[in-house]
Amino acid sequence: MASRAKEKSGRKGQVLILVASDSDIPALRDGLDFLREMGVAYTLDIVSAHRHPEKAASLAKGARAGGFDVIIAGAGLAAALPGVVAAHTTLPVIGIPFNGGSLLGLDALLSIVQMPKGVPVATVGINAARNACILACEILSIKDDVLRQKLEAMKDGMRREIDRKSRKLRN
Amino acid sequence: MASRAKEKSGRKGQVLILVASDSDIPALRDGLDFLREMGVAYTLDIVSAHRHPEKAASLAKGARAGGFDVIIAGAGLAAALPGVVAAHTTLPVIGIPFNGGSLLGLDALLSIVQMPKGVPVATVGINAARNACILACEILSIKDDVLRQKLEAMKDGMRREIDRKSRKLRN
Amino acid sequence: MASRAKEKSGRKGQVLILVASDSDIPALRDGLDFLREMGVAYTLDIVSAHRHPEKAASLAKGARAGGFDVIIAGAGLAAALPGVVAAHTTLPVIGIPFNGGSLLGLDALLSIVQMPKGVPVATVGINAARNACILACEILSIKDDVLRQKLEAMKDGMRREIDRKSRKLRN
Amino acid sequence: MASRAKEKSGRKGQVLILVASDSDIPALRDGLDFLREMGVAYTLDIVSAHRHPEKAASLAKGARAGGFDVIIAGAGLAAALPGVVAAHTTLPVIGIPFNGGSLLGLDALLSIVQMPKGVPVATVGINAARNACILACEILSIKDDVLRQKLEAMKDGMRREIDRKSRKLRN
Amino acid sequence: MASRAKEKSGRKGQVLILVASDSDIPALRDGLDFLREMGVAYTLDIVSAHRHPEKAASLAKGARAGGFDVIIAGAGLAAALPGVVAAHTTLPVIGIPFNGGSLLGLDALLSIVQMPKGVPVATVGINAARNACILACEILSIKDDVLRQKLEAMKDGMRREIDRKSRKLRN
Amino acid sequence: MASRAKEKSGRKGQVLILVASDSDIPALRDGLDFLREMGVAYTLDIVSAHRHPEKAASLAKGARAGGFDVIIAGAGLAAALPGVVAAHTTLPVIGIPFNGGSLLGLDALLSIVQMPKGVPVATVGINAARNACILACEILSIKDDVLRQKLEAMKDGMRREIDRKSRKLRN
Amino acid sequence: MASRAKEKSGRKGQVLILVASDSDIPALRDGLDFLREMGVAYTLDIVSAHRHPEKAASLAKGARAGGFDVIIAGAGLAAALPGVVAAHTTLPVIGIPFNGGSLLGLDALLSIVQMPKGVPVATVGINAARNACILACEILSIKDDVLRQKLEAMKDGMRREIDRKSRKLRN
Amino acid sequence: MASRAKEKSGRKGQVLILVASDSDIPALRDGLDFLREMGVAYTLDIVSAHRHPEKAASLAKGARAGGFDVIIAGAGLAAALPGVVAAHTTLPVIGIPFNGGSLLGLDALLSIVQMPKGVPVATVGINAARNACILACEILSIKDDVLRQKLEAMKDGMRREIDRKSRKLRN
Repeated sequence: MASRAKEKSGRKGQVLILVASDSDIPALRDGLDFLREMGVAYTLDIVSAHRHPEKAASLAKGARAGGFDVIIAGAGLAAALPGVVAAHTTLPVIGIPFNGGSLLGLDALLSIVQMPKGVPVATVGINAARNACILACEILSIKDDVLRQKLEAMKDGMRREIDRKSRKLRN
Repeated sequence: MASRAKEKSGRKGQVLILVASDSDIPALRDGLDFLREMGVAYTLDIVSAHRHPEKAASLAKGARAGGFDVIIAGAGLAAALPGVVAAHTTLPVIGIPFNGGSLLGLDALLSIVQMPKGVPVATVGINAARNACILACEILSIKDDVLRQKLEAMKDGMRREIDRKSRKLRN
Repeated sequence: MASRAKEKSGRKGQVLILVASDSDIPALRDGLDFLREMGVAYTLDIVSAHRHPEKAASLAKGARAGGFDVIIAGAGLAAALPGVVAAHTTLPVIGIPFNGGSLLGLDALLSIVQMPKGVPVATVGINAARNACILACEILSIKDDVLRQKLEAMKDGMRREIDRKSRKLRN
Repeated sequence: MASRAKEKSGRKGQVLILVASDSDIPALRDGLDFLREMGVAYTLDIVSAHRHPEKAASLAKGARAGGFDVIIAGAGLAAALPGVVAAHTTLPVIGIPFNGGSLLGLDALLSIVQMPKGVPVATVGINAARNACILACEILSIKDDVLRQKLEAMKDGMRREIDRKSRKLRN
Repeated sequence: MASRAKEKSGRKGQVLILVASDSDIPALRDGLDFLREMGVAYTLDIVSAHRHPEKAASLAKGARAGGFDVIIAGAGLAAALPGVVAAHTTLPVIGIPFNGGSLLGLDALLSIVQMPKGVPVATVGINAARNACILACEILSIKDDVLRQKLEAMKDGMRREIDRKSRKLRN
Repeated sequence: MASRAKEKSGRKGQVLILVASDSDIPALRDGLDFLREMGVAYTLDIVSAHRHPEKAASLAKGARAGGFDVIIAGAGLAAALPGVVAAHTTLPVIGIPFNGGSLLGLDALLSIVQMPKGVPVATVGINAARNACILACEILSIKDDVLRQKLEAMKDGMRREIDRKSRKLRN
Repeated sequence: MASRAKEKSGRKGQVLILVASDSDIPALRDGLDFLREMGVAYTLDIVSAHRHPEKAASLAKGARAGGFDVIIAGAGLAAALPGVVAAHTTLPVIGIPFNGGSLLGLDALLSIVQMPKGVPVATVGINAARNACILACEILSIKDDVLRQKLEAMKDGMRREIDRKSRKLRN
Repeated sequence: MASRAKEKSGRKGQVLILVASDSDIPALRDGLDFLREMGVAYTLDIVSAHRHPEKAASLAKGARAGGFDVIIAGAGLAAALPGVVAAHTTLPVIGIPFNGGSLLGLDALLSIVQMPKGVPVATVGINAARNACILACEILSIKDDVLRQKLEAMKDGMRREIDRKSRKLRN
């Protein structure tokens, strides 16, 4: 599941995905599938703002030069990773609050979304890894017309899926 | 304060900013200032997912063709505007929860961030209009190297400001 | 489970029930049973404010002309469906917050109940599909005396049920 | 501000409005204005589920026979009034949670909306007296075509107001 | 499990226990055991503020004349029963918030504890039926010296139990 | 405002009122007035579970022997006082959560009401000093028929006050 | 699992660990393991601020003279133990909020962290027994250079563990 | 207000205090006064985990070598500073959640206290700067007997202050 930069080598629009623990990776699966469907290359790595802060800083600092256009960072509890990554880059950083511990993910949500002035994190819903990946593609689509068309097709697909279920219900 | 598309005519990277009420505009001021500092053209308009849904749909649908790359939508209470805008576009949509009513903006935050699978909104903190605009610029920067440099200068400025205050405190 | 308008063709008082996903339908069962007990015809359909906004708008706009008197809309998370439906009709709209995701349904409750001035949603409790359907019947009862009598009988039944359990406890 | 039943004597569609304290009446003003604009007669009275329970029961029990079609009940804190009123009638009951005490109205909201199975309350947002009155009119409109037209005009007015503000912003 | 008034006939200090549903009775078991250990007679009945309001009023009104000194009322969701009972009596009323529905019992807690001025409910913790019964006994103990001694013995027992566990841990 | 035990010397039913700070005393005023209206003697003292734990323990332990029948303890923040007092007595202890600090009194409410099994606190609403004093009188009334009559008169007064306001509204 | 003071007799830096129930001990296991890895002697005991207040006071008062340098106290619900212990000592007291009851541990967190001015408790996360023990070691490390080195090695180990997982993910 | 290391040069026990903004300094005043009363030298500096992450890392890494024994870090909103500081040191780190923004400081509290396993922060109450400084002194007191005596005198003073207020109330 590691770096897929090779799959579409030469591609400029790429996503760096960082999680605090390998136990968070299953929660990402649905989002990673989406990126593969869209043909968007990504690199997935494990890092922690609290347990390996130097690596977090170093990955964030090097992300733009490394050819990444968007960073997705997911964490639970006092989820500092997305904000700490955002502190070290001017790339857009998408934060996924994971529901760990007992507080339903509300702690992670507030720790990620309530950033101080100057350092935003684009926060998605609790455990919403797929939405994080869709948002990453929407961002990439501002300079990638093929990706835009794929996103529009995905949106059409959602409509048709509802129409299909609606018809099934009527019959 | 209306359309500044003329200021940098021909520019592709543009931001469409939608709020539900003219009473929300003062809360945007700090963010609009930032866009002007960055030289990013924006269009500000008033619309409501609940009181003028057709206009919300129409603005969202036409945004990409109109040359916009990012949409910012702010709302309070049961803040449906960002999500409804996202329903009609594949552009990245940034949502600002405004603190209206008695629930401290928590209602708006949850109404914006907890989007269902398939339709993300890039949520920033409660009342965080400036961060919404910085995030918009970060998104634009993936295809605009001049803007990237301005953002890096802004980030350096924040560091220097803290250093300056730190020195002042020591003396 | 689809349209039952045929069952009581010609009946004016009808309920349109909209949910965002077929996975929400089991949660409605208890309410649909109640409508059938009361002899109230309903149409159930699937639609989403975020994934199929045009259909949501179209169903809401056509509801009154289609002979419906009340709309029930249920959704979870950032539950925009009831409010978006209410935006497109002057019929009374009843909203059911479903407990989806990790936040216990509190996100859906606030997303539905905290509507801005001008566009109310008649919100019932979390997952309270049966109460939504009872409320729909109470609304219909203002012009349907037979239904009023059935509701009063239902209320009497609740009293008798408690009396029965109370007697059983004493013996 | 009391009974206005005389204004439109003989009118069947009427609203009974109950609040727990005369200090709640200013919060209703905006809603009462709306009812007058719509030409809907209402009776406003003071009662308390906790301090005058017999009167609450008696008003609720007699409401339908008294010609009322909808009841609006507003209360703060452990807001039992709407639910207690609903216990004694099969008319639709609209509940307004008032923001009293220190908990932002969240206590009143949960006390009103989380009704047990069998006895719904149509809950509107915290302090949302105007929305309660609009909802009452929407309910009445299912048997009053003139009122339906007025509501549609009100909705059109909201759209035009946004269009007007939007134009003003552009110029 | 019904009335045990016979067990200690002629006893003045008695407890009336009311719950909204027979499904709440298992949650009371631990408290009822305590009352039996203390030799305090109680009557358990089922009633609902929303589904059988007349019975709730009648039981509350007749409680003091019936020889009861304390009332315990337990309910979940928009838990109006304790407050409605308190509305109809000057006896001390103890409220137990039951954890029903999805909101962890927080809805019931706020619906019971946040009573308006004039009508208190002595609220215990969520699901804390045993504490409700201990509190009832503490109240009765102000006129029953034998019960006071039993309560003091119970408190000594808690201390000894901790001492015993502490010793076991050390060895 | 100190001890009023002298006022009705020889009286057995008495209330001991403990607050953590002299700054809490104004919040009690309304309740103390009620006790005086009812002719119930009380002693008010300042103590803290955290800053003067020995005094808290000593006052609680000696309360019953000192002739008190009920203890009222009020505190804010991590409000341990009511629970700590209850740990040292078998008298009924009424807890008042005060709204201090930034969390609206929710911290104090949970710190007081969520007592572990074995040691109940009769919790009233946030800042509800008057209700605490009414509850104390209700408890005393189980052995004081004169006080019972005064409480019933107080309750009648509340009804008449609402009737009076209702009439005023109609005219 | 009892006192391990013997293991490193003569050692000055010691930790006293107090929990309210033997059912809390499994939740401590992970933290106790850490103390053993660090070679830090501890004494574990059971006590309750509410059910055995004298023992809580006595253990806290004697802790410093008994050679302890840090106290860890864990409790759930209205978790008074850490604060009550802190009331009786000038040693640093670390509080662990345990997730008991229905409120996710939020009640315990607020009951422990929101201490009044003058009596702090060093609060760690909900159920975070291991972090409590690490914090205790960090405190001890200010006078124990060997322990400091062990803590730094533990921190290096966390980094290496993440590096190892990161490498594994790439291959 | 800057470095006071000179005041007690040669002293080993010192406190490093870090806040994210000069606007947080007034909230510290009460705590800084306490440190001066205790004769504990401190250094106060401004830094931000999000706006100046390198300085935060550098200050944290150098703290122990610089002679500091305890670090206090205060921040509001998504308060990452205390956790990020703790990531870079094995010194005990005390976190103060500041009440900034609209969420009452609850966001800062959860962002600070809910640290992942391995990196604790000793969290005090919202805005509790004085308690943070008392806790710092308690930590220092494990190797500083003079400071221990001062803390015990401070605790005695709190008791006497309550006794004084209690006497004043009685007279």
